[in-house]
Amino acid sequence: MKSSKPETFSCPSPPASGERVQLAHGGGSRMAAELIEKLLVPGFADPVLSRLEDQATLELVLAPGERLAFTTDSFVVDPLFFPGGSIGELAINGTINDLAMGGARPLYLSVALIIEEGLPLADLERVMAAMVGAVRASGVRVVTGDTKVVGRGACDKLFINTSGIGLVPAGVELSAANLRPGDRIILSGTMADHGMAIMSCREGLSFVSPLASDTAALHGLVEAMLAVVPPGAGGLRAMRDPTRGGVAAVLSEMARASRVGVVIAEERLPVAPPVRGACELLGIDPIFVANEGKLLAAVAAERADELLAVMRSHPLGRESAIIGEVTDANPGLVALRTILGTSRIVDLPAGEQLPRIC
Amino acid sequence: MKSSKPETFSCPSPPASGERVQLAHGGGSRMAAELIEKLLVPGFADPVLSRLEDQATLELVLAPGERLAFTTDSFVVDPLFFPGGSIGELAINGTINDLAMGGARPLYLSVALIIEEGLPLADLERVMAAMVGAVRASGVRVVTGDTKVVGRGACDKLFINTSGIGLVPAGVELSAANLRPGDRIILSGTMADHGMAIMSCREGLSFVSPLASDTAALHGLVEAMLAVVPPGAGGLRAMRDPTRGGVAAVLSEMARASRVGVVIAEERLPVAPPVRGACELLGIDPIFVANEGKLLAAVAAERADELLAVMRSHPLGRESAIIGEVTDANPGLVALRTILGTSRIVDLPAGEQLPRIC
Repeated sequence: MKSSKPETFSCPSPPASGERVQLAHGGGSRMAAELIEKLLVPGFADPVLSRLEDQATLELVLAPGERLAFTTDSFVVDPLFFPGGSIGELAINGTINDLAMGGARPLYLSVALIIEEGLPLADLERVMAAMVGAVRASGVRVVTGDTKVVGRGACDKLFINTSGIGLVPAGVELSAANLRPGDRIILSGTMADHGMAIMSCREGLSFVSPLASDTAALHGLVEAMLAVVPPGAGGLRAMRDPTRGGVAAVLSEMARASRVGVVIAEERLPVAPPVRGACELLGIDPIFVANEGKLLAAVAAERADELLAVMRSHPLGRESAIIGEVTDANPGLVALRTILGTSRIVDLPAGEQLPRIC
Repeated sequence: MKSSKPETFSCPSPPASGERVQLAHGGGSRMAAELIEKLLVPGFADPVLSRLEDQATLELVLAPGERLAFTTDSFVVDPLFFPGGSIGELAINGTINDLAMGGARPLYLSVALIIEEGLPLADLERVMAAMVGAVRASGVRVVTGDTKVVGRGACDKLFINTSGIGLVPAGVELSAANLRPGDRIILSGTMADHGMAIMSCREGLSFVSPLASDTAALHGLVEAMLAVVPPGAGGLRAMRDPTRGGVAAVLSEMARASRVGVVIAEERLPVAPPVRGACELLGIDPIFVANEGKLLAAVAAERADELLAVMRSHPLGRESAIIGEVTDANPGLVALRTILGTSRIVDLPAGEQLPRIC
């Protein structure tokens, strides 16, 4: 959720003063114990995490047919702080979303920090506060963690890995390989918000309406979707969040995995006006640019309008739109029907457009 | 398990030639897809991992009273390759051990790579082969993963996070907070092997008998221990592997968590002769130096000999020894009784002695 005020955001943020992380904070020492026990653990206020064992031990009750979901993601975003959020929210919300895209109810997260010697403790505190805020807002629990400190120049400021565990309800079988010709593709909101916020920050661009990351945890939206249009033959096929590589990369993965074609209509792709302006200025196609709080869903045609209505009634899906459909033709490929009526293949870029976007 | 031949190990290893990792391998691109689908995923040969969904979905059957164990660890060891192993074995065995120390049967791992642009692909292949070997030897499964590539200088070569899930059998309640006065402390073998192998490597030291890391997965040893001396009032109290901070750090954590004292006898602490030689040369006390294939167990006095016998009959515990006992006196502290009959408090170092040991 956007909680910062981008109009007053200074990007890059001014360097924090005061104490800095030292190598001595790194492990097996009194200083490491103090860092962990005073700065890293208390905010999460979790009884399992606070035990500081090498592993969390968790009571888990599985309903018949329920399965475990397990995912991992490392976050290396540069800068650490950007309009709309920080690496902290991103690391929590991103792993929640990876669980939610499989239809799982997110339950438990791990947090592993790799910190560069010299990082201002104030920056670390700010990131931890952002993580704690995102954890509380989402209702998941951080139950285990790890901290490493590496020398100056051995990493860039701070990397965070979060892994997550959730439960997939019985009967929920979502997969990028499930698409069938005729299915509709729904996008839950505007494209490219996160990526262009990072990009404008890095390029030092300022706009009349500043850009802000859309980082958000999508499990509530997903829960609402699954309640109304359950997965299966006549329902929801697959969900994925368009992060690195954007909408194009996700649709391409789905088309390849399901051996179907996907056709999307350019005029239906939602892009916020300031994001469109920034993309035009920088010559970037928003279809390749990351979101961090949107999802793409493939759904049987006969349930598409119903699913769209549910999504639009959720605060994180108000601008949802049917952007295309699945075809027999061109298996493995994504085609864009332009406003002029022409059609072109949306090919993945050979390389990465925006390194360290997440 | 030691599989390399330390006597022929060149440390640091000669730079690999040939192709290198590029930023373009990083995400949402064709090159990223190729790297993942050709180099990173096939070796593990796991049907769940090979689906390349954003999350693994796993059938899990919990016996009555069984609980889930969940852990995470990032590996930033420098150098990547050292006598006795590499960051690859370390990342797999380390997380297996964090699960096993809670009495859990390790089941599933995640692997998240952060790769520096310019890393030779041959080095990445070598690390992946080491991971695959460790996974096969241990019987766990790698079911989900993540890859990030960062620019030159933004990380040092390669960092690996592994998170893990296991099952803790009903009735197994191990905790560093469970020690009681009179308990015996058993160490499963020689101290400081891993740390001194890294150290000798970094310092360019060579010895007549070269040092080698003891990296090993300990879940088999733990299973044998639990089968004979189950946890509880008259049995096993706690296990931990002495990694960063060595035997001293683990015993100090146990003493603090249980509010008891721990007294260890210097003459009972097993140290391999070449490790002792290296420690003397460098002025390092092996009690503070990391292992990666040993464990410390606290056990009720009346079962200590039985547990020791089980451990000694296991290939990874042949040199197990009772090294000390738990006392009422000096709660929170570890005392060392020297060979001369004097006693001193083993205090944790204020800072970290050997950064990037794991």
